[in-house]
Amino acid sequence: MNSSNPSPARTVRLEARDGRLTGPTAGLASGFVQVNLVILPEAQANGFLRFCQANPKPCPLIAVSEPGQRSCEVLAKELDIARDVPAYCVYRHGELAATPVDVSDLWQDDLVTFALGCSFSFEHALVQGGVAVRHIDEGRNVPMFKTSIPLQTAGGFSGQTVVSMRPFLATEAIRAIQITTRYPQAHGAPVHFGDPAQIGISDLMKPDYGDPVSVHADETPVFWACGVTPQQVLMDAGVPFAITHSPGHMLVTDIPESQVALL
Amino acid sequence: MNSSNPSPARTVRLEARDGRLTGPTAGLASGFVQVNLVILPEAQANGFLRFCQANPKPCPLIAVSEPGQRSCEVLAKELDIARDVPAYCVYRHGELAATPVDVSDLWQDDLVTFALGCSFSFEHALVQGGVAVRHIDEGRNVPMFKTSIPLQTAGGFSGQTVVSMRPFLATEAIRAIQITTRYPQAHGAPVHFGDPAQIGISDLMKPDYGDPVSVHADETPVFWACGVTPQQVLMDAGVPFAITHSPGHMLVTDIPESQVALL
Repeated sequence: MNSSNPSPARTVRLEARDGRLTGPTAGLASGFVQVNLVILPEAQANGFLRFCQANPKPCPLIAVSEPGQRSCEVLAKELDIARDVPAYCVYRHGELAATPVDVSDLWQDDLVTFALGCSFSFEHALVQGGVAVRHIDEGRNVPMFKTSIPLQTAGGFSGQTVVSMRPFLATEAIRAIQITTRYPQAHGAPVHFGDPAQIGISDLMKPDYGDPVSVHADETPVFWACGVTPQQVLMDAGVPFAITHSPGHMLVTDIPESQVALL
Repeated sequence: MNSSNPSPARTVRLEARDGRLTGPTAGLASGFVQVNLVILPEAQANGFLRFCQANPKPCPLIAVSEPGQRSCEVLAKELDIARDVPAYCVYRHGELAATPVDVSDLWQDDLVTFALGCSFSFEHALVQGGVAVRHIDEGRNVPMFKTSIPLQTAGGFSGQTVVSMRPFLATEAIRAIQITTRYPQAHGAPVHFGDPAQIGISDLMKPDYGDPVSVHADETPVFWACGVTPQQVLMDAGVPFAITHSPGHMLVTDIPESQVALL
């Protein structure tokens, strides 16, 4: 690649950096891994790393930066973590404080960046595998729910798993379990299917995040651990300062999706 | 291996040959693949081979003999197909005619033997993977059901899939789907889970073959294509002459179970 003809992934990052792209990244730079970002001061980062290692389904670690580093070669060439995401969320003491499109002015030498896998990778694989994904077909955000599924307590963090839900016929669900098993770095296989009450969800039509989608009478809801889990955990812990990507506004990496498939 | 210290699999076959073993083979020669047998005159065998190729989930072909051959090196050393199974079923014009322990006297030079994979292989893998299998725990035969799932018509044979059912919690079912996906030669991944009526089953407590097992309120029934399917298809077709193993009385091969796992 050269600067006169950048890759589709780098094009998205440069548009975000320039402020030309401030919207969601779904469907952009197809075939390249998109990641959730969590950025924390080192004082909290070491514990959060242990938490991610203990909870790989909601928090699949793809990369962790050195403190203060705004680049990350394993994710992308010439990356600027503080500017290459279309929109960020800034949390202070567990509360959302701002949603800037650039966090250069908030950067600190002790900030550690966590890149966590995202369901976009497996959704692309599902669609390519002939398994239609309802919220994509309905032009909505995936419905996400707080659950009663406990997380492993580690590094001072704890809580319950947040899940995303996709409805399927049984034969599609079986295929979806096979396909997503290939993507442990994108939340992997589901954590539940069937009765939502078994994992503490009272109403499928009232997601805690995202949009509701239709579930037909012959379909089964299937639930995957979701990248919103670490954001919820950080808020619940009331960390003094954290930056994340804004939901749906992911970092587009140079990693081909094929590279994160197990098989 | 030598004749003074035969392998556990060969020991089972020799006991069956001698008439010392006439009972079911479940749990015998653990770790070795057990197979369903279908033995047909060449006139029907060529069509049946096409049928198996078209329906690999209920009829996973592991080996097909040459006409008249009573040995089969790919299955087992020094095999005698006509004597090494504890009990056989003989069908004439689609009806069960006899259940002998030896079919030497019925052997014909045109008989072709089909060895089809059996769910024992994946059940062993499930238990080793920490997923309890209800009918094993309850000391029963697996419950099997005729369904409305159509088979691919081929070679003059047609019909509907017969399935076996195992109940699981959702998390266990997800793991069971992963594990059985590794065993395409033992029926592979399930063909359905959840609502039995969707595949034409009216009452889970009234299996068409085998025994009923308990299904708890928080469990989902999971259905796999079953090796009884080809037997049912042959009976429905009214083939003039066929020999099969007696249900549960399998041929124990020298093939290690690990060798038929995909991964």
